[in-house]
Amino acid sequence: MSLSAIDPDRIRRRLDDLWAIGHTDGGGVTRLAYSHEENAAFDYLRSELPDAYDVRTDSLGNLFATRDPDAPESLYLGSHLDSVYNGGRLDGPLGVVTALEAMEAVHASDETPPRPPTLAVFRAEESARFGHHTIGSRGALGRLTVDEFSATDEEGVPLWLAMQQAGIHPENLAAPTIDLDAVAGFLELHIEQGRVLDEADESIGVVTGIRAPVRYRVTVTGEDDHSGATPMGLRHDALAAAAEAILAVERIGTDAAESGDVVATVGDVMAVEGAINKVCGEVTFPIDLRSNDEAYRDEVESRLLEALADIADRREVEIDPEPIDRSEPVDLDERVVDALADAAAATGVAYRRLPSGGGHDAMNFQLSGVPTGMVFVPSVDGISHSPAEETDPAAIETGTEVLARAILGDEF
Amino acid sequence: MSLSAIDPDRIRRRLDDLWAIGHTDGGGVTRLAYSHEENAAFDYLRSELPDAYDVRTDSLGNLFATRDPDAPESLYLGSHLDSVYNGGRLDGPLGVVTALEAMEAVHASDETPPRPPTLAVFRAEESARFGHHTIGSRGALGRLTVDEFSATDEEGVPLWLAMQQAGIHPENLAAPTIDLDAVAGFLELHIEQGRVLDEADESIGVVTGIRAPVRYRVTVTGEDDHSGATPMGLRHDALAAAAEAILAVERIGTDAAESGDVVATVGDVMAVEGAINKVCGEVTFPIDLRSNDEAYRDEVESRLLEALADIADRREVEIDPEPIDRSEPVDLDERVVDALADAAAATGVAYRRLPSGGGHDAMNFQLSGVPTGMVFVPSVDGISHSPAEETDPAAIETGTEVLARAILGDEF
Repeated sequence: MSLSAIDPDRIRRRLDDLWAIGHTDGGGVTRLAYSHEENAAFDYLRSELPDAYDVRTDSLGNLFATRDPDAPESLYLGSHLDSVYNGGRLDGPLGVVTALEAMEAVHASDETPPRPPTLAVFRAEESARFGHHTIGSRGALGRLTVDEFSATDEEGVPLWLAMQQAGIHPENLAAPTIDLDAVAGFLELHIEQGRVLDEADESIGVVTGIRAPVRYRVTVTGEDDHSGATPMGLRHDALAAAAEAILAVERIGTDAAESGDVVATVGDVMAVEGAINKVCGEVTFPIDLRSNDEAYRDEVESRLLEALADIADRREVEIDPEPIDRSEPVDLDERVVDALADAAAATGVAYRRLPSGGGHDAMNFQLSGVPTGMVFVPSVDGISHSPAEETDPAAIETGTEVLARAILGDEF
Repeated sequence: MSLSAIDPDRIRRRLDDLWAIGHTDGGGVTRLAYSHEENAAFDYLRSELPDAYDVRTDSLGNLFATRDPDAPESLYLGSHLDSVYNGGRLDGPLGVVTALEAMEAVHASDETPPRPPTLAVFRAEESARFGHHTIGSRGALGRLTVDEFSATDEEGVPLWLAMQQAGIHPENLAAPTIDLDAVAGFLELHIEQGRVLDEADESIGVVTGIRAPVRYRVTVTGEDDHSGATPMGLRHDALAAAAEAILAVERIGTDAAESGDVVATVGDVMAVEGAINKVCGEVTFPIDLRSNDEAYRDEVESRLLEALADIADRREVEIDPEPIDRSEPVDLDERVVDALADAAAATGVAYRRLPSGGGHDAMNFQLSGVPTGMVFVPSVDGISHSPAEETDPAAIETGTEVLARAILGDEF
């Protein structure tokens, strides 16, 4: 198998060109969903496609491009082009650019894929602007809901208006914009956004499933007091109680991770009217609990809630955990996962199977019954959603080769 | 001893009248240092003084009033009239109004005090506007420093300009504005601002000393990571480390309070760029450690710093405690404390000796060598610096009687 047409310089040039669209002073990029910049990125991508491509834009603004529009079945590959505020240059564009590169390498090779590939480029994957994720891919799959369209950005612009302003006019939301019977599979390459591959010095991750979160917003209510005048024994310190709860989340998560797939995190905290000279009377913090195993996640969730109740009882404070999100984990297709692992093995690099900590466009395809797989490349120091996002070019080239090998495989 | 002239209705009326100057919608009051409202409160107080009073305003805007300006020695009594933003009606004014009431009750009685009393009303006790406390009383005692005058309020107005605008023109800062040789003692009645007396159902507190703080601003630096993608074992979670530090402050403070006078508090926390979907990489929080025993406080401080270093080592994060304040505790005069305790006992109510958690004008007199005492009345639910500040009128009347008895005593 010769995939010598994979061109690292072309990949780098396209990533640079896309970064220039919405780049920020510190080397980052702000290319929000349905912004002028996202439109410009789609225009750029279209301009990079060989003339032989049949290009279609659906009513959600997603782009589909293939050399074989009449094939009865096609393997879809792609990712998104939008970013978070001051994000990195890889999250999204890397999956688009490497998919195109893999397709072209396959085209330039002497082999014929059993299911000709289609490049799929989605709008609005990031929740940064409207608080809703993977809007484009869910729209393409008929998985959007009407009420999501009233979500507003931080300037009060509703999603439906932002779409109109970007020239996008959604049609029947309940109907997919693509013929799912003709979609043989979906593949997405993405940066890991964690530090597992980087710390293990492995080049490729084959994603086994998508962790989904249960999320709470917790309010701890104690009593405001004067820090100098209130003896230790007379306090109902909301911040000390919150600190105990934060440590309980970490401890329970760490213990549970020994026997199953779990991460549990408190990533923020607010002391309401906190001050150096007060015993703090109210604290809020979020809990983010994720697993690719829903039953196990629910079991760990029970342990967490029990721990919070214990702390509240013992400290005579109120702890009120308000549920704010409960998503379903997604197991990716076993045959596709095996095929990607075989492709990774064939490249000769070190790789591993691992769950994805975050959601991606790919998960929606699996949820719609399309056999789906994902390829991760390492995030240097685990950094993402930051101008410092970085991946070794060699790993990017290897990831592209894994995609190309999968296109040429017979699993779809 | 007959002190029947103490008039609870007059006390209440004067507190109401003072509250009206700068009152806020929710029943609170904003009467900041050197504001029009503080000026108006001083004008009001002056208008309430009997004609027989000799009234003097010093170059810091403090007011001194007595029926016996020619007495070789005088016992000073008083407090302040400024408030924090949206504070309560008692913090400050109560000490002024009850001092005047006690002086008048003594005057109306058939007894003659050994050292005729002088009412002392100070400017700018609260640090709310300029970040510096007890400016008026320190000025009167020659304890202000020139550099304090460049402190600015939140609108950028420097202290020296605010004083000029209030018609106050300080003179030689190094020289007291009062003849300390003629000051036999100083007494201040104040709300406790804690919950000790309220919870114990005691009417009077006799203050033994003023706790002084050592304060730190602590920065914990770990690593920002994706909450869903970063396994528990690969994290350097600054918020979990901060939580452990907050609990260490509480535990060490609680243990130390068993063997000495200590309170240790973390009353605020900030997760820098915290988010629900992140492992937090940076957290800051303040530590406020107070005691009326400097040596013991320093010992507890060492334990705290050691605990922080341990946490940093174990978790492989940086914990940087930056010292921001180190004040000296003040022991109040033993003979005065005993005299006030005798006076409290004579009223027949339940009372106790206790340290003051916060600083007061009184401490500056003790620091200047004036025999000084303080009387606390209970804060309902320990609340202060809030519109909900409240004290049982019976306790206020008793507190006034304690002051009056002290004026008539022979301790000064």
